[in-house]
Amino acid sequence: MRAHLEESPDLAWSRRVDGLTSSAIREILRVVTRGDIISFAGGLPAPELFPTTLLALMAADLFAAPDGRQALQYGETEGVPALRERIAARVPFPPGRFDPDEVLVTHGSQQGLDLLAKLFVDPGDEVLVETPAYVGALQPFRFFGARLTFLPCDGEGVLPDALATALERSPKLVYLTPTFQNPSGVCYPEARRAAVREVLQRSHALVVEDDPYREIWFDAAPPAPLVCGLDPARAVYMGSFSKTAVPGLRVGFLLGPRQVVRRCVLAKQAADLHTNCLGQHLILRLLAEPAFAEHVAGVRAAYRARRDALHDALGSRVAGQLTWARPRGGMFLWARLTGGGDATKLLEVALAEGLAFVPGGEFHAEGAGRDTLRLNFTHSNPERLAEGVERLARALERWKA
Amino acid sequence: MRAHLEESPDLAWSRRVDGLTSSAIREILRVVTRGDIISFAGGLPAPELFPTTLLALMAADLFAAPDGRQALQYGETEGVPALRERIAARVPFPPGRFDPDEVLVTHGSQQGLDLLAKLFVDPGDEVLVETPAYVGALQPFRFFGARLTFLPCDGEGVLPDALATALERSPKLVYLTPTFQNPSGVCYPEARRAAVREVLQRSHALVVEDDPYREIWFDAAPPAPLVCGLDPARAVYMGSFSKTAVPGLRVGFLLGPRQVVRRCVLAKQAADLHTNCLGQHLILRLLAEPAFAEHVAGVRAAYRARRDALHDALGSRVAGQLTWARPRGGMFLWARLTGGGDATKLLEVALAEGLAFVPGGEFHAEGAGRDTLRLNFTHSNPERLAEGVERLARALERWKA
Repeated sequence: MRAHLEESPDLAWSRRVDGLTSSAIREILRVVTRGDIISFAGGLPAPELFPTTLLALMAADLFAAPDGRQALQYGETEGVPALRERIAARVPFPPGRFDPDEVLVTHGSQQGLDLLAKLFVDPGDEVLVETPAYVGALQPFRFFGARLTFLPCDGEGVLPDALATALERSPKLVYLTPTFQNPSGVCYPEARRAAVREVLQRSHALVVEDDPYREIWFDAAPPAPLVCGLDPARAVYMGSFSKTAVPGLRVGFLLGPRQVVRRCVLAKQAADLHTNCLGQHLILRLLAEPAFAEHVAGVRAAYRARRDALHDALGSRVAGQLTWARPRGGMFLWARLTGGGDATKLLEVALAEGLAFVPGGEFHAEGAGRDTLRLNFTHSNPERLAEGVERLARALERWKA
Repeated sequence: MRAHLEESPDLAWSRRVDGLTSSAIREILRVVTRGDIISFAGGLPAPELFPTTLLALMAADLFAAPDGRQALQYGETEGVPALRERIAARVPFPPGRFDPDEVLVTHGSQQGLDLLAKLFVDPGDEVLVETPAYVGALQPFRFFGARLTFLPCDGEGVLPDALATALERSPKLVYLTPTFQNPSGVCYPEARRAAVREVLQRSHALVVEDDPYREIWFDAAPPAPLVCGLDPARAVYMGSFSKTAVPGLRVGFLLGPRQVVRRCVLAKQAADLHTNCLGQHLILRLLAEPAFAEHVAGVRAAYRARRDALHDALGSRVAGQLTWARPRGGMFLWARLTGGGDATKLLEVALAEGLAFVPGGEFHAEGAGRDTLRLNFTHSNPERLAEGVERLARALERWKA
């Protein structure tokens, strides 16, 4: 599923370019702008739920405020100081766990991955990831030449024994998404978090916890982040406002020990000087607004209803052909072809029926996971989700035949 | 002048981290937030000239528009299509020179440098730059291990013969800023552009032209970009809206052959998914607004007056001690200590007198250019510029003594 590039005969590319891959998801997304296709393929939040009215108020307020011009000027690479303070005080950690100077505001949490890959990955270095893994992390790690090891996982997260064995090889970095993972939807329960922490504490690898879906929970708030209780000197935490506010502002954050944040700042200075200030100031105002907490609760409720709609429709229409766990948060439902098979072949049939989804192969090591698929439920309303499942059922019928 | 990092004993950094340097300019800027210091050090545009009223209107219009929510959603890595079209049609090239799909919207033009360094620079690769050179370009090139060669320049730009000799070694990349360069203010005249083009056409190196100051001209519009007339297959052009609109939106652009843009897109996808859409949509609206052209003309006039104020004050107060050329555009005046000496020592004295500037050493190869200094004239009004020169004159007196 890794896209290939056209020939480039005579420019003197860096060796790194061999590790450059496109996301099949984004390639599929280009195709599915056809209006008659129902797409379960993207990872898009629902635009009709965006806090547009709030943001318009914040923007008007900002442009009229004495500090309004400052929001349009060059800024500090580290991020707007007041936003760093609020992020340090806000993330789900014990008070004082992070100081504001242990916070870097990033251009989306994706940028944190690029900075960490730059700072830690030399060609051939081992990086541990889950099976399946967030594909957006695989891209920067591969680009900088990492050897990826996909660790075995079950419905509660990575298997502690397998992690312990892999850590004996002294990998550079362990990348984990323990809370409503994209793509699997898995949320490590408290006991698994404790077991994984114990294993990690015996290692010297840098632990990177990516936590963009924490606030999108449906049944109960998730357990504390994995990095709580880990050695602060080797634990990095990343998050985002893309799922609770809006993605288009590209405001995320990275928290970690001073020596890591300090080097991320220098690497970011060379990469883009600083994150756009208008977005930072809008997020800062949004976080101070009581109505924003209500907005997030509303997003949770709407996505819960969509999760239910997808889960119920699958249960009544394709229960024999697909196997899945009901996700308790996040944006995706992860399914397996019960009798095995190749989900990319199923996708071809599904597209003909007017449905797009992401075959799960690209979240795995090359060649693995062909029988899996990822279904997004946040970007379609319950009626579209039900209609999409009808199309999926028809596709499964034709695909088997 | 390259800042050093604290010790980092036990994390397994990449080898790349050895090439990580801080900009002395940014370190100085941290110091000069003291209100009693007049700073000629930064590279900041004047916030009082920002088109805040226009941007507030654009923002209100955007949030109310049918496509308003789209401006807050995830977007294409390449950039907002309508903005790419407008950039392709707008840059100072013959019609059709660039198609919209040869445009990448970047998170500030600084990001273009990071992407090109990633795609072209392996450790030890030679990169040619001017003397002096834009320090923000040196950082990403050094970070990726480039061997920098600083080419000799005069008041009309790089010396063609020296460039020809260096090109015989087949460097990876030639980085040039021919139009009102930061820091030197030099604008290559037409004849020098022609001579440089002729030399470059005999080479296979990728030519990168960085052109953020093109619209900030004071006496006459500058000649056509250097890349006009170069082989399109190996010429990249970068620009920015930071100097004409506002820097805080972080919207810049990179134009080049499809095979380069295509790989920049993949590298950007891994780095930050896409440039913030709100900023892109605001710039798009601004470019369509007739009042924006008037705004840019007003910025030119205001900066021309500031350039004159600085030039005249220097002429009447320190003509014997400093040597400089009157810049015909851009944001900086570049000066040399007429009798030689170390500008970093002068800076120490100047800070005690309440004036900051940037010593020129860091724009040069290690150890060179110690007798140069960069003075910004856009961020201080004429009165502050005159008062700053008084302080500089006092500092020069004390420094000589």
